[in-house]
Amino acid sequence: MSYEESIIEGRNAVIEAFRSGKTIDKIYILDGCQDGPMSTIRREAKKHGALVKYVEKERLDQLSSTGKHQGVIAYAAAYTYAEVEDMLQKAREKNEDPFLILLDGIEDPHNLGAIIRTANQAGAHGVIIPKNRAVGLTAVVARTSAGALNYTPVAKVTNLSKTIEELKKEGMWFVCADMEGTRMYDLNLKGAIGLVIGGEGDGVSRLVKENCDMIASIPMKGEIDSLNASVAAGVLAYEIVRQRFT
Amino acid sequence: MSYEESIIEGRNAVIEAFRSGKTIDKIYILDGCQDGPMSTIRREAKKHGALVKYVEKERLDQLSSTGKHQGVIAYAAAYTYAEVEDMLQKAREKNEDPFLILLDGIEDPHNLGAIIRTANQAGAHGVIIPKNRAVGLTAVVARTSAGALNYTPVAKVTNLSKTIEELKKEGMWFVCADMEGTRMYDLNLKGAIGLVIGGEGDGVSRLVKENCDMIASIPMKGEIDSLNASVAAGVLAYEIVRQRFT
Repeated sequence: MSYEESIIEGRNAVIEAFRSGKTIDKIYILDGCQDGPMSTIRREAKKHGALVKYVEKERLDQLSSTGKHQGVIAYAAAYTYAEVEDMLQKAREKNEDPFLILLDGIEDPHNLGAIIRTANQAGAHGVIIPKNRAVGLTAVVARTSAGALNYTPVAKVTNLSKTIEELKKEGMWFVCADMEGTRMYDLNLKGAIGLVIGGEGDGVSRLVKENCDMIASIPMKGEIDSLNASVAAGVLAYEIVRQRFT
Repeated sequence: MSYEESIIEGRNAVIEAFRSGKTIDKIYILDGCQDGPMSTIRREAKKHGALVKYVEKERLDQLSSTGKHQGVIAYAAAYTYAEVEDMLQKAREKNEDPFLILLDGIEDPHNLGAIIRTANQAGAHGVIIPKNRAVGLTAVVARTSAGALNYTPVAKVTNLSKTIEELKKEGMWFVCADMEGTRMYDLNLKGAIGLVIGGEGDGVSRLVKENCDMIASIPMKGEIDSLNASVAAGVLAYEIVRQRFT
């Protein structure tokens, strides 16, 4: 499987991709282009929640691998996204407290893949990622997940803070990872829980952090700043596993 | 920093690299080449413990980026290796029980870098890697370690089993990661400890496993086989941290 397979160029190809139910992550459209087919593409993009970027012709030419983009290039997900409700349903079916992992801006596909793999092994019911400023389910993610993407659902939401608020109403607690938090061993991480991991660069954003019930820190004994994002997610997810099962 | 910077081609360049104290990991020499400079290179390689591989001219031509290899291409480490004794000394100075991480055949430089980063944050005194069938300290490793390579020493040994035997005589205990082991929470991982992590493909080798005192498993609740190697190393290293400090 290669990343190139999920790039769709040309108006008819992109419209057809939408109609066949393919999940389009992102569309680059030639700025100022207003004709009929392009209006259809914009309408479909809005309906399916694809991110639309208006760019100059030079940028499209650069992105194009066929040289025949006709003013539009779309990036399709290698895998389809789930709904958050499906994850809660899965937990109910297994008679388990929901355990979700939320990623606030992971940009490296290798990290996302490794985290989906960890989510699967730690018994999490799903992974939630934001629509913007984050990597989606590309072929690299699928490969790095080592098959976990076939079992662990991934949902994409417009606003992570809002999703957290809604899930709190359903009785879930949220803990985010931050250096300034309470040592993870000293927190009660049992019950219905969402673990929020920040992006590689900036960590968890302020708004999301304010929405969390707890802030957990991994003890850092070294000279450097932080752990790799997928390692940090693994260490925290397994602290939750330990508290659940011992 | 790029990986290319650490490739040295040509007889004089390679001899000069040895004389200047550069750490050479691996040397490809034209099979059958017996002249004076080549004997010097072989002698230096033996003295410094570099791995020598004898290859056909076609292979060298393929590996060469300058086209002027003169029958020899060397791969230099971006960083210098430490001795195992330095790590024990570091533990003594800090008045801590030694905590070492041993890697039995990690091949992905991103995993090695992430594990060195974890070792630094988990307060390990060093990382030990084998000379053969494993990635060394390349520029990619240095970058992925996010600076940890400047603080956490890495030693390269010829025989991991023998190193374990020697360290056991000094009072260290060894635990290796394996799916068939005892659940990590149920093991006593306190005291002077060496954590052994297997390679991405085959895990910990039989001989090394037989030399370990304990076999620890991470609870796996999912449908797939395993965790990413650097995530598994992080989860186990932090179980040791938890037992040491709580």
